[in-house]
Amino acid sequence: MNESDLLERISERSAHLHGRGAIVIGPGDDTAVLALPGLTLATVDHLVEDRHYDATASIDDIARKAVARSVSDIAAMAGRPVCALATGCLREGFTRGDELFERLSSWAERFEAPLAGGDIAISPGPTVLTVTILGRPHEVRGPVERSTAREGDRVCVTGALGGSLKSGRHLRFSPRIDEASELAGGLGRALTAMIDLSDGLGRDAARVARASAVRVEIDARRIPRHAGVNDWREAASDGEDYELLFCVAEGAAVPSSVGAGTPVTVIGRVVRGAGCVIIEEGGAAHDASALGWEHRA
Amino acid sequence: MNESDLLERISERSAHLHGRGAIVIGPGDDTAVLALPGLTLATVDHLVEDRHYDATASIDDIARKAVARSVSDIAAMAGRPVCALATGCLREGFTRGDELFERLSSWAERFEAPLAGGDIAISPGPTVLTVTILGRPHEVRGPVERSTAREGDRVCVTGALGGSLKSGRHLRFSPRIDEASELAGGLGRALTAMIDLSDGLGRDAARVARASAVRVEIDARRIPRHAGVNDWREAASDGEDYELLFCVAEGAAVPSSVGAGTPVTVIGRVVRGAGCVIIEEGGAAHDASALGWEHRA
Repeated sequence: MNESDLLERISERSAHLHGRGAIVIGPGDDTAVLALPGLTLATVDHLVEDRHYDATASIDDIARKAVARSVSDIAAMAGRPVCALATGCLREGFTRGDELFERLSSWAERFEAPLAGGDIAISPGPTVLTVTILGRPHEVRGPVERSTAREGDRVCVTGALGGSLKSGRHLRFSPRIDEASELAGGLGRALTAMIDLSDGLGRDAARVARASAVRVEIDARRIPRHAGVNDWREAASDGEDYELLFCVAEGAAVPSSVGAGTPVTVIGRVVRGAGCVIIEEGGAAHDASALGWEHRA
Repeated sequence: MNESDLLERISERSAHLHGRGAIVIGPGDDTAVLALPGLTLATVDHLVEDRHYDATASIDDIARKAVARSVSDIAAMAGRPVCALATGCLREGFTRGDELFERLSSWAERFEAPLAGGDIAISPGPTVLTVTILGRPHEVRGPVERSTAREGDRVCVTGALGGSLKSGRHLRFSPRIDEASELAGGLGRALTAMIDLSDGLGRDAARVARASAVRVEIDARRIPRHAGVNDWREAASDGEDYELLFCVAEGAAVPSSVGAGTPVTVIGRVVRGAGCVIIEEGGAAHDASALGWEHRA
């Protein structure tokens, strides 16, 4: 199947999306036409073969992860997805393009971000997918930035960390959309800052510290670990957790769980200064920005 | 330079975009935050190394084409760009990522679509760029679809066709934003349908016919050709012209030029029926959908 045949199949399959929700005109024309009142969140992420997934991943897993990664960015702002645009630069000879886009379309709908458009190209490989998601912020709290943590905040995470790649969780995680909405609704302005954990607790917490011009101190013993994760260092370094790291202002009550029973753990605090450290029981402090998952060019 | 260093450089360079135009919060957080009142146009296109450009193209040309391809889709709806998101999946060992994103950012601003966000990944190659553009339709005419051509319309093109790849024009074309706005403003509802010519006049005119459920007949002698283009077949097949093909209702005057002197040529008409043919002087009719530029998978 060539590119334009495939694009046509996709637009035929998307005919039911015209006039649904934000999508005034869906795939099939030069552009989609959308109605996006109020503020709009916009993000795009890559999914690259042999880097973000390997030959053991099913087409369904690949499609799910491609969409979920970008949805997780919307969750990190406490928003909800509205619609998506997807691209697939498919490896020459890859014969399952139609199935891949069918699964992308299905996961996009499941994650509240129906596909409004996209593009297909062919290359010698690897296959490179991108998913752009447009979303809307929480209607009361508005977008929750990473740059607005304040001295005195508690630093919290949802769920447990570590071992995502070796366990396969990185393929089948559920972006924390509902949890983030509930935090924004319940805490309001006391939810001071938020980020999703894609590159590991260490590096991502350091980003909050840098963006907010504060110091973040994390208690190594408090970092919640998945079963099979040996120590705090693994939990803070492995990456691809897609949990939420968020800050709660002094005086506000931190919920013990959110969503359908996702635990919340207070792991540290925001203080005056700069940088992000993880402090062990004996008092040894480790630079968090040096931990975490990073591919170098 | 690794990915997160590069992303940080990009967000630092984009600091002036915060609060400018539609961009409430620009690059540097989990998502951009945009204000997009009214209807929004959304499109995404690929630019793939060794397919859409080769080793002779400069970094500036690559960046320009990556942005211009998507801007041309906005022009095809008679819209204007508002902002963009870009991804670069860069070939391992490619050391000019910072320069490439600087040029992408610069061209995006030049084409009225400042970069509000993006993502960077590394792969064994080829380099794959995507540019998502959000735009706004013409305030009076609204989005001009490809599916609304009507029996009796004249079929017109801007500029001249053919030879784009061999001449290098495919790298340095100017998307017909101003021309499309002027057509929409001047013709209103008499501008019945429009598309940009990316895959060649033949295939793209056939798309308008199919989407509109009409027949398009093009007079081979009237197809405007660039110097060095030998015949109508080359002009209709070469592709990557990025000119506008549009339809004008019976009774409305077709302007002889638009924008800063871009010529307009009536090349055919819309009749009852199906398909798209190019008719030679002697009367021989050629199926237009079989012409044009296509990579097969």
